[in-house]
Amino acid sequence: MTIFNIDMSKKEICQESFPKDKIVGGRAMIDFLMTEYASPTAHPLSEESLLIIAPGLLAGSNAPQSGRLSIGGKSPLTGGIKEANVGGTVGHKLGRLGIRAIVVKGKSPELSIMRVSSNGVSLESAQDIVGLKNYEACEYMRKQYGDDVGIMVAGIAGELKLANSTVAVADPEGRPSRHAARGGLGAVMCAKGLKAIVIDSEGIPTRKATDPETFRVAIKDAAEAISAHPLTKPFHTYGSNWALALDNQRGSLPTRNHTQGSFEKFESIDAYKLHEIIKSRGGKLGHSCMTGCVARCSNIYNDANGNFLTAGFEYETIAMLGSNLGISDLDDIARMERLCDDLGIDTIEMGCTIGILNEVGLFNFGDAKKAYSLIEEISKGSPLGRILGSGTTVTAQVFGIDRVPAVKGQGIPGHSARSCKGWGVTYATSPQGADHTAGPVVEEFLSKEGQVQRSRMSQIVITGIDSAGLCLYARLAGQPDIITRMINGLHGINWSSKDYLEMAKEALRQERAFNKRAGMGDGQDRLPDWMRKEPLPPTNAVFDVDQNEMDGLFNF
Amino acid sequence: MTIFNIDMSKKEICQESFPKDKIVGGRAMIDFLMTEYASPTAHPLSEESLLIIAPGLLAGSNAPQSGRLSIGGKSPLTGGIKEANVGGTVGHKLGRLGIRAIVVKGKSPELSIMRVSSNGVSLESAQDIVGLKNYEACEYMRKQYGDDVGIMVAGIAGELKLANSTVAVADPEGRPSRHAARGGLGAVMCAKGLKAIVIDSEGIPTRKATDPETFRVAIKDAAEAISAHPLTKPFHTYGSNWALALDNQRGSLPTRNHTQGSFEKFESIDAYKLHEIIKSRGGKLGHSCMTGCVARCSNIYNDANGNFLTAGFEYETIAMLGSNLGISDLDDIARMERLCDDLGIDTIEMGCTIGILNEVGLFNFGDAKKAYSLIEEISKGSPLGRILGSGTTVTAQVFGIDRVPAVKGQGIPGHSARSCKGWGVTYATSPQGADHTAGPVVEEFLSKEGQVQRSRMSQIVITGIDSAGLCLYARLAGQPDIITRMINGLHGINWSSKDYLEMAKEALRQERAFNKRAGMGDGQDRLPDWMRKEPLPPTNAVFDVDQNEMDGLFNF
Repeated sequence: MTIFNIDMSKKEICQESFPKDKIVGGRAMIDFLMTEYASPTAHPLSEESLLIIAPGLLAGSNAPQSGRLSIGGKSPLTGGIKEANVGGTVGHKLGRLGIRAIVVKGKSPELSIMRVSSNGVSLESAQDIVGLKNYEACEYMRKQYGDDVGIMVAGIAGELKLANSTVAVADPEGRPSRHAARGGLGAVMCAKGLKAIVIDSEGIPTRKATDPETFRVAIKDAAEAISAHPLTKPFHTYGSNWALALDNQRGSLPTRNHTQGSFEKFESIDAYKLHEIIKSRGGKLGHSCMTGCVARCSNIYNDANGNFLTAGFEYETIAMLGSNLGISDLDDIARMERLCDDLGIDTIEMGCTIGILNEVGLFNFGDAKKAYSLIEEISKGSPLGRILGSGTTVTAQVFGIDRVPAVKGQGIPGHSARSCKGWGVTYATSPQGADHTAGPVVEEFLSKEGQVQRSRMSQIVITGIDSAGLCLYARLAGQPDIITRMINGLHGINWSSKDYLEMAKEALRQERAFNKRAGMGDGQDRLPDWMRKEPLPPTNAVFDVDQNEMDGLFNF
Repeated sequence: MTIFNIDMSKKEICQESFPKDKIVGGRAMIDFLMTEYASPTAHPLSEESLLIIAPGLLAGSNAPQSGRLSIGGKSPLTGGIKEANVGGTVGHKLGRLGIRAIVVKGKSPELSIMRVSSNGVSLESAQDIVGLKNYEACEYMRKQYGDDVGIMVAGIAGELKLANSTVAVADPEGRPSRHAARGGLGAVMCAKGLKAIVIDSEGIPTRKATDPETFRVAIKDAAEAISAHPLTKPFHTYGSNWALALDNQRGSLPTRNHTQGSFEKFESIDAYKLHEIIKSRGGKLGHSCMTGCVARCSNIYNDANGNFLTAGFEYETIAMLGSNLGISDLDDIARMERLCDDLGIDTIEMGCTIGILNEVGLFNFGDAKKAYSLIEEISKGSPLGRILGSGTTVTAQVFGIDRVPAVKGQGIPGHSARSCKGWGVTYATSPQGADHTAGPVVEEFLSKEGQVQRSRMSQIVITGIDSAGLCLYARLAGQPDIITRMINGLHGINWSSKDYLEMAKEALRQERAFNKRAGMGDGQDRLPDWMRKEPLPPTNAVFDVDQNEMDGLFNF
């Protein structure tokens, strides 16, 4: 097991072995390395800050859903620790190569492409792809390095060092449709002097389990449990946008800059409509974004002429660039999504940012053309584009807007905090800022009771999944038991479920400790004050979970 | 003794008596009221946030240097508590009117002028002065309300709700040359719906002491001590810019975006040059900015034709808009200062902000014309102008700059932290962000030893002075003994110096507690990391005061 330490200032590449018996991966690996090696007070774009790439504990194996890749560092958006994970083909390839992490420090003014293969790591000039949109850059790299390479690329937003910039990861077709999107890691990557990373694992077999029998049974159980789960079929058939009608119905679909929880035109953008359009235009549903996927919730969305427009067109994007902007045409939203993918911009943050511009007359709800042009503006690097690319909180500050839908500098995503209160607790307390992955999936959305416990469990469970390198659908496998058995089988250890969850808890504790040392006080574990007063139609719910109880969330 | 509570949402004005025996004023009054009545998590520009105006404990009396006025609230620049104090004529007038504080809450979209007199408080439309530059607005108000009124006005930067916006206070000539400059209180004032406040104390006598004999002796001692202090004469003769040659010589004059500590052209901008120009053009030195001033460090600066250009042209401005931008022509700097006064912009923050633009090619050191045009840009409300008017930290974030000379979001002022280490400790730890008023004046600037204790004492002493409503030169009076006696005489109490300092300590504790509840962790009590590594020529000092020792600064 290997870790690569890359110093971009000196162009030094150093390979170290990582102790086989240190069972840490993905998000937990990022938290561990950030705790050990990163200065919490260093500026996220400075020489001292780190960019870390870490596949999960099950990466490179045959475990279902195990291809997620964690990318991390200090976030230019939140000022705290950041782990953003992503599907696509890179996580699996790094796992096969036996690479546990790539840790990048230093800084170079010229952008490079990092090549990773069984021969090690090398750097070469990125001059041919600098300034290209991501789709074009990926096409170039596939031509240059082979169709089967894994690709990570920071887009134009990253080159501009904007806090709303992603790291795109190529999907199985080599397209930059998957993104480690939140928190500005594209800017961190480009600040290091890295434009792209190309991973070649040709000829390297799938990772072998140390305890093959335990592993074989566990992955079989996992695949069966996921396949059998009642939610798998709707997600497979309709994709994550399946949630939209449900959120709309319960009043938790962010609509018109978080002023409403239902969108009267939701049927124009819901999963049935999406399904109908995709089917009629020869697109694809049930698409896998990564190797070994059972759930296959991704999709390919063609335009009216049947030509490819975008892939991985998902719930959060449709909510935040659709209903949250009062936009009801899926083609409009898909074009925006494609543009965000092409520039390396997080669609959640972008939707939040454009939404608040309605308050200052720079955007009118429903004006898809204007919304598109505002995203385009970012790529120009103009002052306005730079503001918008700096995220919701900075945009609000620059325009003097005081109703800011953000926590710890990160825009609030697609399940309304007020009418989906367990999610509200997660948005407020997650060390990652308002996070769209770690809310509770259970019922009782409107009650204020029990949400702290639900959010706590959910954050722990998701941190475990993020560390195993699994996608969220692994939650359907009835974990933690099955996940623990998969880890045990692959690594030849004998964890209990409690041990596994303890790894997750420790990771969360490290994240909070990092944030604290970075200057983030507990007083930032708050939703915006106005969410406790402004009722959200149609439920007219306000956020009313007891703050003292929330302040005790991290009591483990 | 009276407090006015104004609700701008309801246009309600409520007068309350304030307990005569609660001895709190100025900065300590702001800290007390913010602690009691403000929500630390409310957005600074929201309806819930407060704007507080509080004259000092000695305001309205004959005590020398006692006309400082404290303005406070939650800062849009730092996100923490803010008190900015200012000379001019308002503090004294409010003291004479027996007003201990004006507390403004709520929010109104239309801007009003608040009128304050012995008849109470009233509001009227500000439509005639909205959008005017401050000099023109003050002229209008003097015509409208009489030459002798005191005036506070938020400039165009405040109207734009920018985080670098001041509240200007008219000097004895009725000009907006004095500013409660730091932290964006102009934006808070305009967010409330207040454009200006006009104070009429005509016919109201100077405040009488409860214990006249104690007071008489104390103010006599204070005036004599200040007059006799060896530093008073140079300050009176040359103004605060007297410090420039000294800072240059010891290597602590911020030069070219804090990359140097001495400026090879310092003689073009030092106090002797300033003196020469002012004298030759019929300007004025030894000008009083407020009633009862003994030190008289202010000035009036005329242009080459002998026409008034600006007043209150001081050290911090000349350092930050001069040497820090590589600009060596006092006329150029004076024009920028006048423009900042006219728009309601803090010159310290502005100098820091323009300085960092050199890193991204938007400004070249020494280009005074460009610097002026960048300030002008702010008044246009263009995207670029809004960025620059949002302060150094936001500008850095938008342009992807990682070498940011700021603490808690506030730009680092005119005594270099690295070669003036006690100041560095104050910049890092002050609850106000990088503060230009509370550094130690003693020797041993380059040593790392003893600076925490010096900064601690200095912060306590200055908080006391800010609460008494005295200007910094009161420090020359050999306080705290004399200040305590003045307070005792005026208020008829029997404080010891220890009691007086305890008031200051309690205020500082309240500031820190507010910030903590606002989400600001101890980890923000840091200078930027790079100041510990990048040597500052010509001393090549780095900041090396022990951080653990600094973390114990507030041990009282």
